[in-house]
Amino acid sequence: MLFMVEMDVNVPLDTDQERFAALKQAEKERFQELQRAGTWRHIWRVVGHYSNVSIFDVADNAALHDILTALPLYPFMNIRVTALCRHPSSIHDDDR
Amino acid sequence: MLFMVEMDVNVPLDTDQERFAALKQAEKERFQELQRAGTWRHIWRVVGHYSNVSIFDVADNAALHDILTALPLYPFMNIRVTALCRHPSSIHDDDR
Amino acid sequence: MLFMVEMDVNVPLDTDQERFAALKQAEKERFQELQRAGTWRHIWRVVGHYSNVSIFDVADNAALHDILTALPLYPFMNIRVTALCRHPSSIHDDDR
Amino acid sequence: MLFMVEMDVNVPLDTDQERFAALKQAEKERFQELQRAGTWRHIWRVVGHYSNVSIFDVADNAALHDILTALPLYPFMNIRVTALCRHPSSIHDDDR
Amino acid sequence: MLFMVEMDVNVPLDTDQERFAALKQAEKERFQELQRAGTWRHIWRVVGHYSNVSIFDVADNAALHDILTALPLYPFMNIRVTALCRHPSSIHDDDR
Amino acid sequence: MLFMVEMDVNVPLDTDQERFAALKQAEKERFQELQRAGTWRHIWRVVGHYSNVSIFDVADNAALHDILTALPLYPFMNIRVTALCRHPSSIHDDDR
Amino acid sequence: MLFMVEMDVNVPLDTDQERFAALKQAEKERFQELQRAGTWRHIWRVVGHYSNVSIFDVADNAALHDILTALPLYPFMNIRVTALCRHPSSIHDDDR
Amino acid sequence: MLFMVEMDVNVPLDTDQERFAALKQAEKERFQELQRAGTWRHIWRVVGHYSNVSIFDVADNAALHDILTALPLYPFMNIRVTALCRHPSSIHDDDR
Amino acid sequence: MLFMVEMDVNVPLDTDQERFAALKQAEKERFQELQRAGTWRHIWRVVGHYSNVSIFDVADNAALHDILTALPLYPFMNIRVTALCRHPSSIHDDDR
Amino acid sequence: MLFMVEMDVNVPLDTDQERFAALKQAEKERFQELQRAGTWRHIWRVVGHYSNVSIFDVADNAALHDILTALPLYPFMNIRVTALCRHPSSIHDDDR
Repeated sequence: MLFMVEMDVNVPLDTDQERFAALKQAEKERFQELQRAGTWRHIWRVVGHYSNVSIFDVADNAALHDILTALPLYPFMNIRVTALCRHPSSIHDDDR
Repeated sequence: MLFMVEMDVNVPLDTDQERFAALKQAEKERFQELQRAGTWRHIWRVVGHYSNVSIFDVADNAALHDILTALPLYPFMNIRVTALCRHPSSIHDDDR
Repeated sequence: MLFMVEMDVNVPLDTDQERFAALKQAEKERFQELQRAGTWRHIWRVVGHYSNVSIFDVADNAALHDILTALPLYPFMNIRVTALCRHPSSIHDDDR
Repeated sequence: MLFMVEMDVNVPLDTDQERFAALKQAEKERFQELQRAGTWRHIWRVVGHYSNVSIFDVADNAALHDILTALPLYPFMNIRVTALCRHPSSIHDDDR
Repeated sequence: MLFMVEMDVNVPLDTDQERFAALKQAEKERFQELQRAGTWRHIWRVVGHYSNVSIFDVADNAALHDILTALPLYPFMNIRVTALCRHPSSIHDDDR
Repeated sequence: MLFMVEMDVNVPLDTDQERFAALKQAEKERFQELQRAGTWRHIWRVVGHYSNVSIFDVADNAALHDILTALPLYPFMNIRVTALCRHPSSIHDDDR
Repeated sequence: MLFMVEMDVNVPLDTDQERFAALKQAEKERFQELQRAGTWRHIWRVVGHYSNVSIFDVADNAALHDILTALPLYPFMNIRVTALCRHPSSIHDDDR
Repeated sequence: MLFMVEMDVNVPLDTDQERFAALKQAEKERFQELQRAGTWRHIWRVVGHYSNVSIFDVADNAALHDILTALPLYPFMNIRVTALCRHPSSIHDDDR
Repeated sequence: MLFMVEMDVNVPLDTDQERFAALKQAEKERFQELQRAGTWRHIWRVVGHYSNVSIFDVADNAALHDILTALPLYPFMNIRVTALCRHPSSIHDDDR
Repeated sequence: MLFMVEMDVNVPLDTDQERFAALKQAEKERFQELQRAGTWRHIWRVVGHYSNVSIFDVADNAALHDILTALPLYPFMNIRVTALCRHPSSIHDDDR
């Protein structure tokens, strides 16, 4: 089941840089784990912003909630969730 | 070059149904042509709305403008365009 | 899988009353069919508005999309969809 | 009498984790007490957010105000209150 | 039980003046009936607008919904409903 | 002359509780003084919020400005001011 | 007593030009009458818009309401009203 | 050349009162200097707010920018700038 | 003197195509006349929209107002005007 | 390829002035380097704000992203990015 998730990362000016770098590294590892599993199907940077547009493919709503709220950078994020589904005109069988 | 395009289709209540069906069919054909060409890389329906979230892969801004404003349903659409780029953490070479 | 759907019905001042009454009746019948099936789990009127707050329990996103866009009054509606999940503190096993 | 209450919990990055955990525990206990009493009729998590959508069944406006403003996590919450009433099409006698 | 109701009346430029005058007269009569009954406790004009701020004192949410949606000018109105309660500092016993 | 004033009180999480309690007490005393004088004609709590809806009856705009900006809790408030006048349909001579 | 009134004039594309010209002429005459009387103290065009920013000096709120709602172009206007008062730092005795 | 400038002054709760009083005094002196020069033609308080509505008469855009950004309280302000021009209906030659 | 003007052209679905084409042609001619004169210094299309971002260089506010409101497509436009000035860091003498 | 970038610089009241001056100097140098390269084609100050409107001419989206997020003042900025393209009516060959 597909969802668009838009994530904005807000880093306060007085953030401890070392601690944040560690969280970023953990975020990257968790992201790649989910990407390999096919759960975090797509990710793109939004030009000029510390933001991404992502497509998740999950079993259900609860799975998405658990994944998002456990992300290492979650406390720094604003998130918008949009439920998607396959478009009837698509010629790609797996355009999930 | 990647862009997210969000399209909302607004159909006034008094729209001529036959004429609109013809435009929809033309829209579908143009969409599939662009999908086959790899230009309209992804499309998803937004649940509960006559809207889609799409990813375009175009040569430049002008190409995107020409494609969007020539869509058969363009006069019925509200459109939001967001410039994207590859995410540095992605492990997929072609996650365009 | 649970979703909150908020529906606002907008009736233009020049709407044909007879035709609209027929659509309302069809909407009511479809609603009750879905309510009996357990799909449209809850519905409440918003005080002072021709609007409702509803809870849907569906198999997946696509099922919700198909139900909503086929509602007889759908062309008159503005809709907001919010993905929900069970709250961890709830003591009700089936508080879906 | 029914109200939808939407609660967003905002936890500043420098919140004392131990003190907040205690407030969360107190919130959970108060919630379950109200759930058992039938006052806090429904609660759902909003996917991806530290937010819930809840349905309250209270004697009157003042009762709701007293309950909400006394919640342990109230100082961390943004709250939206929407007055509801039974929907005339509902076939459930107690779809409160 | 108290509610603030803010009503904006939108009169399209092509409204039939005679028919609208009749609705206004019916609205005034219904308003005064409710004012005499103590239900529509207060009403004020908003300066420069075809709008009012009103305080209703009703038995419950459903009563308010039934009153508002049956107003003769309701199809021309945008309405905002805010649940109120007595203020603890008030020295007036009946400042409802 | 009548004005609706909507006041939201924002109390930062790290506010000194003792000092704030003193300001609240001073606010209450000032409010009751103005209520007795007929200047602060009405006040209601907004359900679920540390906010009120108030009706002021003042000599002129400057009088209202001086009263509001001198309130003990003014530095914690967001305020919206709306000029009102008597409604022509009201049957109450003094529904100010 | 001073108020800032911001007026936006919205002229639908299908407006009868002759009738609108007559209303504009009536508006101009009424404006100049009020300007001569010192009631409509200032008026400025907003660059690029069919809008003005005006300062009114009126006896009370009701006087302003009666003036605004009787303007010939009032049915075409969106209006924002802001209550003003003399600024304490002003060195002009009559900077009303 | 005329501009409307709307200034909101935001004073954080922990502002050093003595330092702020000095800035306010400097602001007042600068304001009166500009008022005497005819540059800051009008100023009014917005009722209930630490805000003003002002009319500036300046040589050009750059002059306005330099004046505004050099105001002693500028770091505490939110500012909205609106370009104005003489209204064609005005009977006052110098209603600048 | 420089201004950014953002223009959105809204063409209702039932617009007479021939008449609109004539207005577009007139708009283009007027634009090129102003571009040649150096008044309409820059114009860019906004990708995906019937909108442009333009930079005007005019003698004063009134000149800009007269130009904009006399554009052939003005009745179809929403316009936002932003006063600009030279940036102090620019190395281009004439980056107007 | 052309983009409009609007940058607002937000300087918290407690910013270290010396450190910020160094960042401003670095920003200016980087800006002039990009201006000389033709990448940062235009820049204008927004009157009354610590903001600019800029036109960038870049190879692609990724180039713009890398430039913007590496600006010395980037952590203090809010940024809006708008994709532009040449306007078909322009008579200037290089009005990029």
